[in-house]
Amino acid sequence: MKVVTLLTDFGLKDGNAAIMKGVIWNIAPNVQIADISHSIQPQNIIEAALILSHAAPHFPSETIHAIVVDPGVGTSRRPIAARIGTQLFVCPDNGVLTLLLNQAHDNGWIIESVLLDNSKYWLPEVSNVFHGRDIFAPVAAHIANGASLKSLGPNINNLIKLRIPAPDQTSLGWNGEVIHIDHFGNLITNVFKKHISGREKKAKIKYKQIEISGIVKTFGDRDPGDIIALYGSPDCLMISMVNGNAANKLGAKIEDKVNVKI
Amino acid sequence: MKVVTLLTDFGLKDGNAAIMKGVIWNIAPNVQIADISHSIQPQNIIEAALILSHAAPHFPSETIHAIVVDPGVGTSRRPIAARIGTQLFVCPDNGVLTLLLNQAHDNGWIIESVLLDNSKYWLPEVSNVFHGRDIFAPVAAHIANGASLKSLGPNINNLIKLRIPAPDQTSLGWNGEVIHIDHFGNLITNVFKKHISGREKKAKIKYKQIEISGIVKTFGDRDPGDIIALYGSPDCLMISMVNGNAANKLGAKIEDKVNVKI
Amino acid sequence: MKVVTLLTDFGLKDGNAAIMKGVIWNIAPNVQIADISHSIQPQNIIEAALILSHAAPHFPSETIHAIVVDPGVGTSRRPIAARIGTQLFVCPDNGVLTLLLNQAHDNGWIIESVLLDNSKYWLPEVSNVFHGRDIFAPVAAHIANGASLKSLGPNINNLIKLRIPAPDQTSLGWNGEVIHIDHFGNLITNVFKKHISGREKKAKIKYKQIEISGIVKTFGDRDPGDIIALYGSPDCLMISMVNGNAANKLGAKIEDKVNVKI
Repeated sequence: MKVVTLLTDFGLKDGNAAIMKGVIWNIAPNVQIADISHSIQPQNIIEAALILSHAAPHFPSETIHAIVVDPGVGTSRRPIAARIGTQLFVCPDNGVLTLLLNQAHDNGWIIESVLLDNSKYWLPEVSNVFHGRDIFAPVAAHIANGASLKSLGPNINNLIKLRIPAPDQTSLGWNGEVIHIDHFGNLITNVFKKHISGREKKAKIKYKQIEISGIVKTFGDRDPGDIIALYGSPDCLMISMVNGNAANKLGAKIEDKVNVKI
Repeated sequence: MKVVTLLTDFGLKDGNAAIMKGVIWNIAPNVQIADISHSIQPQNIIEAALILSHAAPHFPSETIHAIVVDPGVGTSRRPIAARIGTQLFVCPDNGVLTLLLNQAHDNGWIIESVLLDNSKYWLPEVSNVFHGRDIFAPVAAHIANGASLKSLGPNINNLIKLRIPAPDQTSLGWNGEVIHIDHFGNLITNVFKKHISGREKKAKIKYKQIEISGIVKTFGDRDPGDIIALYGSPDCLMISMVNGNAANKLGAKIEDKVNVKI
Repeated sequence: MKVVTLLTDFGLKDGNAAIMKGVIWNIAPNVQIADISHSIQPQNIIEAALILSHAAPHFPSETIHAIVVDPGVGTSRRPIAARIGTQLFVCPDNGVLTLLLNQAHDNGWIIESVLLDNSKYWLPEVSNVFHGRDIFAPVAAHIANGASLKSLGPNINNLIKLRIPAPDQTSLGWNGEVIHIDHFGNLITNVFKKHISGREKKAKIKYKQIEISGIVKTFGDRDPGDIIALYGSPDCLMISMVNGNAANKLGAKIEDKVNVKI
């Protein structure tokens, strides 16, 4: 069966993600639908971009991802659909595809994108406040039913891209930052394994007043309560507390600086 | 495939919604199941009624909605099944269908309801505390398998209806109230587009010490941080903060008064 | 269709449960997937064991449950698969199956367990931090596709079991404790119906400064706000507030003592 995923900032209380499912099954009754997350911080497009870039690659080829973090709903921001490699995306053109587009560029994957302007594939009535229901869900369902990107609207190729912070190289290593804090309170940084170049044992990670010596393999390599550095997945350096919540303990927030000496 | 939805106040931690899915798939292995919400405030039947009335109409015909917000479980409150228009509902008779019954009445849709008293369609053992598992999930599954309403129990037609607050007309407009606060902190009121009669530009919305001039089309029409009035979906007047949480900012709560001059 | 369930402490924000679904559908495109819970308290294996033991028995025969509460990920803790009665389980060997193994022992159900050491059934690359994605999801999918336990690795039969606290018998009844606090704020105890032996009316339940006389049938038997004792499901004694949250009201926590005189 075809798979459609949903990634939104709708939360779990109001039934709005379910409304998208109802609309999709009305048009494409046999698709499987998976929630990637509905707990994106409201209007936080970068957070959605990050979580999407982690999750999408694990889905089957031809999966259709509908992403609705959409502070510009009802304005002139463009609704789009895109093929990136083997997968499909339906969303507002607000930069949420940035990381996937970067990956596609690095790996030579196909990129194709269209403006959604063929209202034949939308609900008959389109509100100013809920395009997830009125445009993105029905378009995702029609793609699942076999509609080509071409049929949805004209090609465009100037998709909006967000600035994703990269670490700065120093004479001794890297100055990076916290780009995500996950459910466990792990601090995910923008320093990657490739930046450390095999010097995991020698590395010193400095965050606020704390210096961590060495990058360990996994949580169980240290004792409960210890603050450690290790690679998350995919291969980003993260600061964690064994069996605890590092972010709460350290008062961490997004954009906090992290220094790595290697 | 047939669709069953679940709407409860069970929360997401304890696995009770999953138990309903297990029971359903035991009886009807091929149905799709969608969660509308499991985050209804405990015992808040009006909130469930509102969210159900928004979501249900978007699902395919013959979808079966199982709603379990059930403070009266195990008492003499009646378990029921109903057809309202093209959809089916299984729930305690506690008023949760009120808004859908009102819509059906306004639109001339079919209404048919039965008392669930045929224990052949229930689990063999029925507890006093979890009829979602023991009665409503199995009945929903048997309906998905083709059981007629008639087979489930005798017709009844005096379903309980809740008082849903309507706005009061004044010489200058309407006195309404906040009936829902959504995940984004939007204040959903019981004043509808039909009450404003095309006077969106002239309208003055008064809430606490704030007066909002005019009803805008969407969030992006004003600047981040601005408090605005706009129509939500379906067409209810709402008070919002652009890219922010109006409810937190304004200390809003359900039943707060909202005055509209038109 | 085959059913796979997921039970984790991943939370709902980061998309990690969705990643497991993507991996599963890549291998076994037609399975149904249900979330039991992703809101287990981080690293709380006992909580997962309890919720699993409530939910799993309600799923169809041959359902495959993937449980990932895994503080030992990447260490020498063993990844396992097990058949317990008619159902299958894939998880770290950390005691999360304890309650189901006890049930199996009491009821004479089949138990078969294997060490997962055949990497043919895993993702090609295995990280040190996310075996839910790299080992447990693909193994669950391959089982759904028909792989035998035997093919996954060698038999083992010394699975880790947790100490599950049992109530102590006194001259007048039982000294038990709170083992779970559910979403509604009900205090679930480790005293069961079998311990009360039909003396529900005479029973006195003492918790902190409160004494409750008698065990009622259901919430609606008393008035809103009353603190009551009743049987939850499955048949455990619980302390509740009618239409309210007993745990918040009473400041309850896990391991609080509960005394029952019968």
